[in-house]
Amino acid sequence: MWRAFLEQAAGAPSVGLAAQIAKLSLGDGAAAANGAAPAAQDGAPLLQAAVKLGSVRAVLEANAARRKPKIAKGTRDFLPAQMTIRRHAFRVIERCFARHGAVAIDTPVFELRETLMGKYGEDSKLIYDLADQGGEILSLRYDLTVPFARYVALNGLGNIKRYHVARVYRRDQPQAARGRFREFFQCDFDIAGAYPPMVPDAEVLKVLVEILSELDIGAFRIKLNHRRILDAMMRVCGVPSNKFRAICSAIDKLDKEPWAAVRTEMVDQKGLAPEAADRIQQFVQEAGEPRALLAKLSAADYPLAADPEAAAALAEMGTLFDLLGSMGNALDSIRFDLSLARGLDYYTGLIYEAVLVPTPGSDANENVGSIAAGGRYDGLVGMFSGKDVPAVGVSIGIERVFAILERRLTAAAKTGGATIRETQTQVLVASPGKGMQLDRIQLAAELWGADIAAEFGYKANPNFKDSLQYADDEGIPFLVILGESEKQEGIVRLKNMQRIAELGSGDALLSKLAA
Amino acid sequence: MWRAFLEQAAGAPSVGLAAQIAKLSLGDGAAAANGAAPAAQDGAPLLQAAVKLGSVRAVLEANAARRKPKIAKGTRDFLPAQMTIRRHAFRVIERCFARHGAVAIDTPVFELRETLMGKYGEDSKLIYDLADQGGEILSLRYDLTVPFARYVALNGLGNIKRYHVARVYRRDQPQAARGRFREFFQCDFDIAGAYPPMVPDAEVLKVLVEILSELDIGAFRIKLNHRRILDAMMRVCGVPSNKFRAICSAIDKLDKEPWAAVRTEMVDQKGLAPEAADRIQQFVQEAGEPRALLAKLSAADYPLAADPEAAAALAEMGTLFDLLGSMGNALDSIRFDLSLARGLDYYTGLIYEAVLVPTPGSDANENVGSIAAGGRYDGLVGMFSGKDVPAVGVSIGIERVFAILERRLTAAAKTGGATIRETQTQVLVASPGKGMQLDRIQLAAELWGADIAAEFGYKANPNFKDSLQYADDEGIPFLVILGESEKQEGIVRLKNMQRIAELGSGDALLSKLAA
Repeated sequence: MWRAFLEQAAGAPSVGLAAQIAKLSLGDGAAAANGAAPAAQDGAPLLQAAVKLGSVRAVLEANAARRKPKIAKGTRDFLPAQMTIRRHAFRVIERCFARHGAVAIDTPVFELRETLMGKYGEDSKLIYDLADQGGEILSLRYDLTVPFARYVALNGLGNIKRYHVARVYRRDQPQAARGRFREFFQCDFDIAGAYPPMVPDAEVLKVLVEILSELDIGAFRIKLNHRRILDAMMRVCGVPSNKFRAICSAIDKLDKEPWAAVRTEMVDQKGLAPEAADRIQQFVQEAGEPRALLAKLSAADYPLAADPEAAAALAEMGTLFDLLGSMGNALDSIRFDLSLARGLDYYTGLIYEAVLVPTPGSDANENVGSIAAGGRYDGLVGMFSGKDVPAVGVSIGIERVFAILERRLTAAAKTGGATIRETQTQVLVASPGKGMQLDRIQLAAELWGADIAAEFGYKANPNFKDSLQYADDEGIPFLVILGESEKQEGIVRLKNMQRIAELGSGDALLSKLAA
Repeated sequence: MWRAFLEQAAGAPSVGLAAQIAKLSLGDGAAAANGAAPAAQDGAPLLQAAVKLGSVRAVLEANAARRKPKIAKGTRDFLPAQMTIRRHAFRVIERCFARHGAVAIDTPVFELRETLMGKYGEDSKLIYDLADQGGEILSLRYDLTVPFARYVALNGLGNIKRYHVARVYRRDQPQAARGRFREFFQCDFDIAGAYPPMVPDAEVLKVLVEILSELDIGAFRIKLNHRRILDAMMRVCGVPSNKFRAICSAIDKLDKEPWAAVRTEMVDQKGLAPEAADRIQQFVQEAGEPRALLAKLSAADYPLAADPEAAAALAEMGTLFDLLGSMGNALDSIRFDLSLARGLDYYTGLIYEAVLVPTPGSDANENVGSIAAGGRYDGLVGMFSGKDVPAVGVSIGIERVFAILERRLTAAAKTGGATIRETQTQVLVASPGKGMQLDRIQLAAELWGADIAAEFGYKANPNFKDSLQYADDEGIPFLVILGESEKQEGIVRLKNMQRIAELGSGDALLSKLAA
């Protein structure tokens, strides 16, 4: 996988490129260009911005800004090499979504605030609001699921299988090293529509398994649970129904906090009876291989047996496991886990979360916790339209994946002596002599016309050694050399940089190339 | 062009797909799946969202939201067919940017408010601010140029050629029919760095010409001017230097308003002497073929002759035209036009704007005005870092392009009997009999494993005629038929939908297929 990616990123030329280039020559245009050389000179004069702006206010503002070129807390720029990695990850993910027949949609980055209210429970406090500048009251989207439900309702859809890759916004405590940002991408795949139980749910999980496998970011595990099993568990434990959501939020913290802390939150902050909390503790320790745990929880002597809701939900889990069993090895990485709660209000059925499994000796930073999550939300569309459209989906939180890919690909490139390519340039047009800029430009324009990515060097007379070094640094596969003698003959010389790189580098390389 | 696009959008199967599919059979898995059929049933029970939410507050909020599923004014959803068209446009544009050796970057959707202040002149009032929720004061980006300058300064870059395709935000009066939104995409290509005069500028214009030609949205014209020629013109006309920016903003409206209205703004609102305004009128009528107008403006008897700044800027224009002349036909669609002013504060040199040329008989809605604009801004990076980095770039406002492409492609598809494909599905797995869902799923999973996009139909027993109709509507090229008899033999039947479509449709088609 790494090898294939690096080769691709390193811009291995497509078959026929060399042939295409070899066919090009300066042709008729050379003479015309020859007579029209501009009086180019190195280094454009640097203009004084403040003087140009011509106003004291602007100067003051410019000075204020100059003190600290900063970006907003919890956000990031994507540098060129990071964009290469991001494109790779998105290509894998979107390819999988499309392979499963999903359409793509997009929605605005902000929604009416009332669209987002009442959907996220305790997390609503993390929503970014826009200032009231007159007109509508707006907020930045917190996830892609609520906008999707709004989209289904607004467009009056009865069913849709869609994906959406876009940024969402949360005023959370950022931890850049662990890939936690306030602005981050989610890659969502959802299926809305009334279908036989668990059929779309199984495909969503299959999609998640395919993507996490193809991204090749290490071993992963998908934890599964069911909101109606959680509800039954809370009923059996004696949790009052008006506390279900609050207790769910507390259980949701079990992957980050020890039981004692969660119990304190339940009892002291949320007013749960201590006996109820202790009964919950017994349940949330149940986790294991899906079919085995299902058998245990479905047994006649298990405390859930008396609850008819639990029986129905457990039957659904059985259906799900059968469906996943027919989809290759989709069940292998899945674990049925009663401690999984998912804090969001809108889930009504199956819920899940994917985590990376730390391997012995792996970088501690790679222990990034949850990288994907989702579930069934049958009531959300109805909150907008009054007409329920059942739906299920998954969000992949790709920032953490980027961080892992970046570390691994950079290391792999270094080991293999390769470069993570930032440009897609296939040809650098270089000339050893002086005064050839218009000729280089004309040749580059011919290459662009043939859909070949080419650069010609902006300096009037680039140093040839610098050109060679640049092509090597950037991983540009071909050098087209155009000097006075080539121009006379109406030809160019083509050098395969990969073969040149095998000869050595620096001055040694230059002398070999000149030979 | 349209034909190629439609064929691609219609998902013409890649070579070897049929062969790949033909090789697949149910194989060993069939028996296993056979024994594990879940008790699937049609139609999942619709859950009552409000009851599940379990709180009066949530019910009230849900009711409030239900009254009006709306999106924010001036924004839009992208529907699946629109996404297909958008992807096509972005592919053309990004391919061109990459062909010219640009790297991709990305920046956050919001910046510190101080980063944006003092950069946009009168347009600053259109900036969206975020609410003050504690912490930093933030605003949504207004364009991609100021964030780019901040990026160059923050990362301490001396040069970079980058592209950036992303959304920007303006609290402007939206006109959806003409492709004017409050949230819209810009496709930006910029070159920062100290280089010989006009070399990067020429490449930026070449990129713009290539993209507008390849998008195939009709004839276009690029208007060029130079801020230092405008400044000289204003000096010669007797405009006081502290009014240069204000008068520039007025001139900028000449493409939408008649001279009389602009003159009123200059004289009555901005306090310009009437004689000065009248002198300006003479200049802003100058427009024409680049080299011809350059010769006229450079003549010894032309009023600009006495201004040394004008002479320098006119010499730069000469250099630019020579460079463009060596880049194929890049100069053909360019017009030198002294009425072009560009309202933004930060331009310091060459400025340009692309407009579509209305053709006789063309749809009035296609007269969308400016679709791209840009220029040189040598002082902007220095406003952040104190160290000037000269830069030049272009923004393509792609929403208007989407609107044109959507109208044309939809019409072309209708005429040609084709579909703008929403999915990329290559195979629909269908079964004529009942009880085959797990088999269909298993086969689809085999196809996914071979990286073939496949759907299996979510209903337990989809009507075969419906499946056929669905494949035809969606433009899915292949139907794989898996019935009881095929399963017994361990084979599938493969139907090429394109060939079937030639036979007819509806019941006639079905009877032919069954034959």
